[in-house]
Amino acid sequence: MRFDLESGAGDGPRLGRLATARGEVATPVFMPVGTRASVKTLTPGEVRALGARIILVNAYHLYLRPGRDVIREAGGVHSFMAWEGPVLSDSGGFQVFSLSRLCSVGQSGVTFRSHLDGSEHFLSPEDVMRIQADLGTDIAMPLDVCVPYPCGRAESARAVELTAEWARRSLAAARPEQTLFGIVQGGACPDLRREAARGLVDLGFPGYALGGLSVGEPKSLLYSLLEETVAHLPADRPRYLMGVGAPDDLVQAVARGIDMFDSVFPTRLARHGTVLTRDGPLRLRAARFRRDRGPIDENCRCYTCRTFSRAYLQHLLAAGELLGMRLTTLHNLHFTLELVEEMRGAIAGGRFASWRISTLERYQEGKAARTEE
Amino acid sequence: MRFDLESGAGDGPRLGRLATARGEVATPVFMPVGTRASVKTLTPGEVRALGARIILVNAYHLYLRPGRDVIREAGGVHSFMAWEGPVLSDSGGFQVFSLSRLCSVGQSGVTFRSHLDGSEHFLSPEDVMRIQADLGTDIAMPLDVCVPYPCGRAESARAVELTAEWARRSLAAARPEQTLFGIVQGGACPDLRREAARGLVDLGFPGYALGGLSVGEPKSLLYSLLEETVAHLPADRPRYLMGVGAPDDLVQAVARGIDMFDSVFPTRLARHGTVLTRDGPLRLRAARFRRDRGPIDENCRCYTCRTFSRAYLQHLLAAGELLGMRLTTLHNLHFTLELVEEMRGAIAGGRFASWRISTLERYQEGKAARTEE
Repeated sequence: MRFDLESGAGDGPRLGRLATARGEVATPVFMPVGTRASVKTLTPGEVRALGARIILVNAYHLYLRPGRDVIREAGGVHSFMAWEGPVLSDSGGFQVFSLSRLCSVGQSGVTFRSHLDGSEHFLSPEDVMRIQADLGTDIAMPLDVCVPYPCGRAESARAVELTAEWARRSLAAARPEQTLFGIVQGGACPDLRREAARGLVDLGFPGYALGGLSVGEPKSLLYSLLEETVAHLPADRPRYLMGVGAPDDLVQAVARGIDMFDSVFPTRLARHGTVLTRDGPLRLRAARFRRDRGPIDENCRCYTCRTFSRAYLQHLLAAGELLGMRLTTLHNLHFTLELVEEMRGAIAGGRFASWRISTLERYQEGKAARTEE
Repeated sequence: MRFDLESGAGDGPRLGRLATARGEVATPVFMPVGTRASVKTLTPGEVRALGARIILVNAYHLYLRPGRDVIREAGGVHSFMAWEGPVLSDSGGFQVFSLSRLCSVGQSGVTFRSHLDGSEHFLSPEDVMRIQADLGTDIAMPLDVCVPYPCGRAESARAVELTAEWARRSLAAARPEQTLFGIVQGGACPDLRREAARGLVDLGFPGYALGGLSVGEPKSLLYSLLEETVAHLPADRPRYLMGVGAPDDLVQAVARGIDMFDSVFPTRLARHGTVLTRDGPLRLRAARFRRDRGPIDENCRCYTCRTFSRAYLQHLLAAGELLGMRLTTLHNLHFTLELVEEMRGAIAGGRFASWRISTLERYQEGKAARTEE
């Protein structure tokens, strides 16, 4: 994988290009999440048609089901799920710490019980690299230690230390055909994040992820932690902010020099019946939309908005019709991918600063107005 | 609506053409079911691309949710759900008797409690016609009295009598722009079905439905009841067998002069993980498909078979991924619509008799072999 920084520098909005064996990706980029080798409700053709060029899958989930052997024998996750573009696999560190029943974290790795059937598993950083090799993903992530928010300084410091050690071991275990990013942890302590970033940069990764953010901390803290971490990352390597996908967060993070994002935010929100617009999120189940013959957004060109009314979408969601979740997912991904595309245009045109102000103002005003209703 | 019988006569396989204001439909035809104004998991464009030319919606369900006012104000169900072709609405008689908590059946209509919220409702045959007028469907069905199987003769006879009276009242209440079919009931009693058919034919409907079949009776009884009923229906009017959609039943019913079908069979089966093939149904969750890299059916040209393996579909279904249900639904509808299309070709080519024997033999042998496994 190669990363070319095309405009911008270290700490402001940047344009870049990730060149992978499976195609080029313009950055900033949003990666739709296909946790279990499916971007929920959508076909790979639809995901691509929406403008996505790289997606994410989760090693923890796929390790537990269907199992690494099934995907290896299918020729890797691309062929398994019929997605031809690049794929980034999350190591599943976050899921081990949040979803499974964690048994113990030792120097050598993690022992946990599956959230599916309670079976006990041990995974070392090397195991997780082997699983991702079986998945055959283009970009892999090392196993890391995730701490909850809020978290004491001592615990955060230990997590950073172990994450650094595991990063080193993961790098040694990485296959040449797979790109491995480092993950900067450090909870809400700027100095720990700085230390973590420096340690990883010394190891020399081709890309750096920011983990353990957007886990409940206030937005202002998220943004300042972003700034303080990015300051210690090399300008010529991609920065990936894990698990962030709300419209305002995307804009604020791009403004601070982030290149890559993934998040279940737009797709999960969609399945719960909330759709994104430039004027804030819209809860389609609200009574006032019962007879609303207009689309989600008059100016949106997605299939859902070109074809269906808010009244119909509300009906589908209320009735539990799967088509409802599919149509809202389509809209929210369209919205998110288009927003990021628009940011790339604004950066290229040298008008990101003003675009950012007006876009955020409109989004936040609309959101506030709708919350008051 | 006009029906032209193009080949065949009263009691054997027939080719026809239904001409509606929203397009022509070649018969025999299978109508995918969109109970709540959505053919589950699919967009209207996909349903049409699969070859469907007419679909079914359910007046009972749409009356309860989203409500007739919502659909009337949307300009009818076609515009509400973005389906441009003809739509047949089932009256919901079957659902009142099977799904809701039935309170009472009187001369004037039915009182029942909603299966959604327990609210009490009264609907007369005229009410049901008004609801269907609000839906704006091309073909409407009268409210009828459905009996369970097995059912005593006296109860079946009363049901036939009341159904006949309601059919008369429905005909009087029908709008000129909507085509109303009669529904032949009569349980498992051939003489009651004959009587019911004659009574409806005297009233002079533009089409006749056979109701209360495929409700648990043995297949041999279904087929003989079909024969005995069809014998009393005019050759120049379409015959619609309600609720039947298993591959062998479709073939056997077309052989006996049926022109129209609807059933949740292919779509419901799909959501439960069973897919249809010429060699019988296939339970995709079976352990032997875990690493099966082949498609559902090598010879199938549907998107699912052209793109995904049995192993991937099993994974999606096991993980509860909605895409799994969507892909199996697509396959099963493709299979069913193609089967009926092939029947039309076989009738047109004068080779239906031999096609029927070989097709049924293959399907039943494959089904038996798989059951033994």
